Amino acid sequence: MQAARASVRRFKPSGDVIRKSLSGPGRTPSSRASSSKASDRPHFPCVDAHAARELHLRSSLRSSISSSSSTSSSHSGPEPAYARPSPASYHVYHHPRPLPLTYASPLPSINIAYETWGTLSPTRDNVILLHTGLSASSHAASTDLNPAEGWWENFIGPGRALDTNQFFIICTNVLGGCYGTTGPSSVDPSTGQRYATHFPVISIFDMVQAQFCLLDHLGIENLYASVGSSMGAMQSLAAGWLYPERVGKVVSISGTARSSPSAIAMRFAQRSVLMADPNWNKGFYYDGLPPHTGMKLARQIATITYRSGPEWDMRFGRKLRRLPAAENSEESPEIADKPRAPALCPDFLIETYLDYQGESFCLKYDANSLIYISKAMDIFDLTGSALAELRFTPPPPRSSPPPLPPSMSAHPTSPTHTHYHWVLSHSKSHPPPPNPPAHLPELAEGLRPLANTPTLILGVQSDILFPVEQQREVADALRMAGNQMVSYFELGGVWGHDTFLLDVQNVGGAIRGFLS
Amino acid sequence: MQAARASVRRFKPSGDVIRKSLSGPGRTPSSRASSSKASDRPHFPCVDAHAARELHLRSSLRSSISSSSSTSSSHSGPEPAYARPSPASYHVYHHPRPLPLTYASPLPSINIAYETWGTLSPTRDNVILLHTGLSASSHAASTDLNPAEGWWENFIGPGRALDTNQFFIICTNVLGGCYGTTGPSSVDPSTGQRYATHFPVISIFDMVQAQFCLLDHLGIENLYASVGSSMGAMQSLAAGWLYPERVGKVVSISGTARSSPSAIAMRFAQRSVLMADPNWNKGFYYDGLPPHTGMKLARQIATITYRSGPEWDMRFGRKLRRLPAAENSEESPEIADKPRAPALCPDFLIETYLDYQGESFCLKYDANSLIYISKAMDIFDLTGSALAELRFTPPPPRSSPPPLPPSMSAHPTSPTHTHYHWVLSHSKSHPPPPNPPAHLPELAEGLRPLANTPTLILGVQSDILFPVEQQREVADALRMAGNQMVSYFELGGVWGHDTFLLDVQNVGGAIRGFLS
Repeated sequence: MQAARASVRRFKPSGDVIRKSLSGPGRTPSSRASSSKASDRPHFPCVDAHAARELHLRSSLRSSISSSSSTSSSHSGPEPAYARPSPASYHVYHHPRPLPLTYASPLPSINIAYETWGTLSPTRDNVILLHTGLSASSHAASTDLNPAEGWWENFIGPGRALDTNQFFIICTNVLGGCYGTTGPSSVDPSTGQRYATHFPVISIFDMVQAQFCLLDHLGIENLYASVGSSMGAMQSLAAGWLYPERVGKVVSISGTARSSPSAIAMRFAQRSVLMADPNWNKGFYYDGLPPHTGMKLARQIATITYRSGPEWDMRFGRKLRRLPAAENSEESPEIADKPRAPALCPDFLIETYLDYQGESFCLKYDANSLIYISKAMDIFDLTGSALAELRFTPPPPRSSPPPLPPSMSAHPTSPTHTHYHWVLSHSKSHPPPPNPPAHLPELAEGLRPLANTPTLILGVQSDILFPVEQQREVADALRMAGNQMVSYFELGGVWGHDTFLLDVQNVGGAIRGFLS
Repeated sequence: MQAARASVRRFKPSGDVIRKSLSGPGRTPSSRASSSKASDRPHFPCVDAHAARELHLRSSLRSSISSSSSTSSSHSGPEPAYARPSPASYHVYHHPRPLPLTYASPLPSINIAYETWGTLSPTRDNVILLHTGLSASSHAASTDLNPAEGWWENFIGPGRALDTNQFFIICTNVLGGCYGTTGPSSVDPSTGQRYATHFPVISIFDMVQAQFCLLDHLGIENLYASVGSSMGAMQSLAAGWLYPERVGKVVSISGTARSSPSAIAMRFAQRSVLMADPNWNKGFYYDGLPPHTGMKLARQIATITYRSGPEWDMRFGRKLRRLPAAENSEESPEIADKPRAPALCPDFLIETYLDYQGESFCLKYDANSLIYISKAMDIFDLTGSALAELRFTPPPPRSSPPPLPPSMSAHPTSPTHTHYHWVLSHSKSHPPPPNPPAHLPELAEGLRPLANTPTLILGVQSDILFPVEQQREVADALRMAGNQMVSYFELGGVWGHDTFLLDVQNVGGAIRGFLS
């Protein structure tokens, strides 16, 4: 999600990409011949783009087959970037033992792609596990192995929110993903074929369990903190829930402890358009063409949920794209006195923006990964009754007090300590909910394992995907569960859900304050 | 929009329709053979549903061709309900002269389908023109010609919001529609072929002009009021703007005077999935299969914008559909101790609900009508600069005072009159906007023709498509334009944009109060 969305900032309405591949009139000619032969038909560049992409992919597929036929009898499709693993740019841990799953039989073995920043302390007590959003890779920031900008580049480094002078940060590609960690596009060792939709339904808990396999492998017993935004915030809460004794602090930014029906609805709409693409082929497209059109349409819908109306008001308003000169001159004389007719294809800048976002993403990410991971988000629910249905035995909250920041741990009863508690408890100034949702006590019950874990909950008032009410709900439920160390912040601004990628000053500042 | 959405209330999660056509496991089997032959592949009933629909339509198409081949050489596709005009159930006015259009050459002639309720007074001064939302027909309420329930059944009748004891109500199918009024599915008289996407881009103003052709034909010079919700509210404002001397009052419910980028984005997403359906065929599908899958996907997205998260929280929460017994028994013994695995096809009730809404709608409405009319909504903009680009000369506001309700007109300076003005001005209690949008003065400039028209603006706080900020904006702009007779109401509740279809008590009450 984040990796691809970094390109958002690079969107230029007058850029070449748009003019070349996305826009065009798509308008119905006002003067036309009186027949409806195909040759006289109106021109829809936004529809032609799908066919052009298909043609291009098909020709890549053909050359890929002919070039591989001499070396292998099993051909594979035109490989998009994600399918070309570049192990030199990240580490891969092969976990040779079965990974138990929430809803299905264990995966026989898994790979976990990961990257790290900073230095592991001799006592291994400075580890931050950073969780990603839906479609991000482990490449949160540039490394020696991969100098390309990461999806959280400005949040990681010396003196930054995740301070590499102090912490050792680990980020993994998530279970189910397509950037090096086992997912539906991986080869099932038991069959020698890619999993496709034979891949089992996975949960956020399963993702976290996979990450802890890596931590065990690295000999890391305890996390200083678990940090995540969006789906990463779900993982972050889940890590604290599953391993209260191993997770020192939890940071949850623009996440939720219980996916709401409206968020499910928005992800459902994306899965629906994707699965309706004939190329999806019930998930078995790895030997052919990927569902690129479905992915583009899904990403357009997703992009709507990532930003906010107020930002678009300011950024695009009701502006139309600039007409290439050629299109202007096509107007027939009889409508020369008419205002420019809007096109049925993207015409408003907000439309060309969404089109561009969809086009940029549609070959960057595996469609099945999108389906499985978005489903894992939908089924995430930390209320007591939901957890009971999973037949999970909730771990007891740790009885020892939370670890203090290194600077304070020497003087647990000093004024600094008092201040520390005061800082962590300032969320009490957030008034108790006047109309608490009916499931709040249930959520508090579910969150009990987190009762002694210092937790930062941060939300954004313009977020329509993880609305601020859900942030308050998590904070309130944690407090109801007895957690005295809930930090709670709400940010304004117009960036919506994407604030966590953009607002280094406020999001980064809150994290840095909470972790230090 | 409304006609089909009446079925929302009839949705029963456990109903037959869902079990039969929409749901099913769509889950990946946990125990499977080790090959990926198609026969072993997971089952996705939500995807199969598209193919089944296609097959059914294709067989209808074949029988329609074979049955029509003896009488006509030009066959047509399997006609959905909208394409079978039943002129007996509504009136059709054929306007034999060209209809000028905002962006294109005139349409040579048009048909306007309409229905009426109540009795036209001898002086023809009791006429209410009722405008529809995007996809509604003229059938707002049952009539002698068509006793079926209409989309605003409970708002029209003796003593109701639109009181047939007092008013003569006219509702038309909108220009561009598919229920009897000329639209893209109509035959172009100049070619003898259906317009398809040779149909010109139309505007909300064009729709209103078409309605006034009908009024002229009926000898109706003045409207007592112009009333509309959603897109109907746009038309209602446009009617008052175009004909300030002919429109006594304007009612705008959950509408806008200027479509926002986020509303455009949501309609763009719908058009995109529709136009990407290969059956759409750039609009030329009338001799073949309609883009039923694209329509279903578009409707799913639309439905998300019509309701609200809080309603879904209350109505569906995170409940899953009930599993048919057969699916339960399919579980392999090895996962018997696992919780029920969620399906990738619709599984949460919110998903089956959206699936059902899409399925119910996808053959009820013409895809091209959806594209053209949704675009007309996008391009609606009553700010001064936008109107200037249309090269419209704004009509001067009427100088005479607005017509009073019949009961008061005899005593224009009586205490009743004072009360009347007090009632209409109570919207001043709505505080002036602390951060008015930058375009507010522009909008006020554009709305000047409505400066002397009593106007009711009503919005709903849970509406995400026409958010309440836009309602306030219209009210504020009208007041800035000098309008002293703006009534402004905000409703709470959880029904979102659909409130105008459901909340007879409050929406109906506000209208009734304003009109009386």
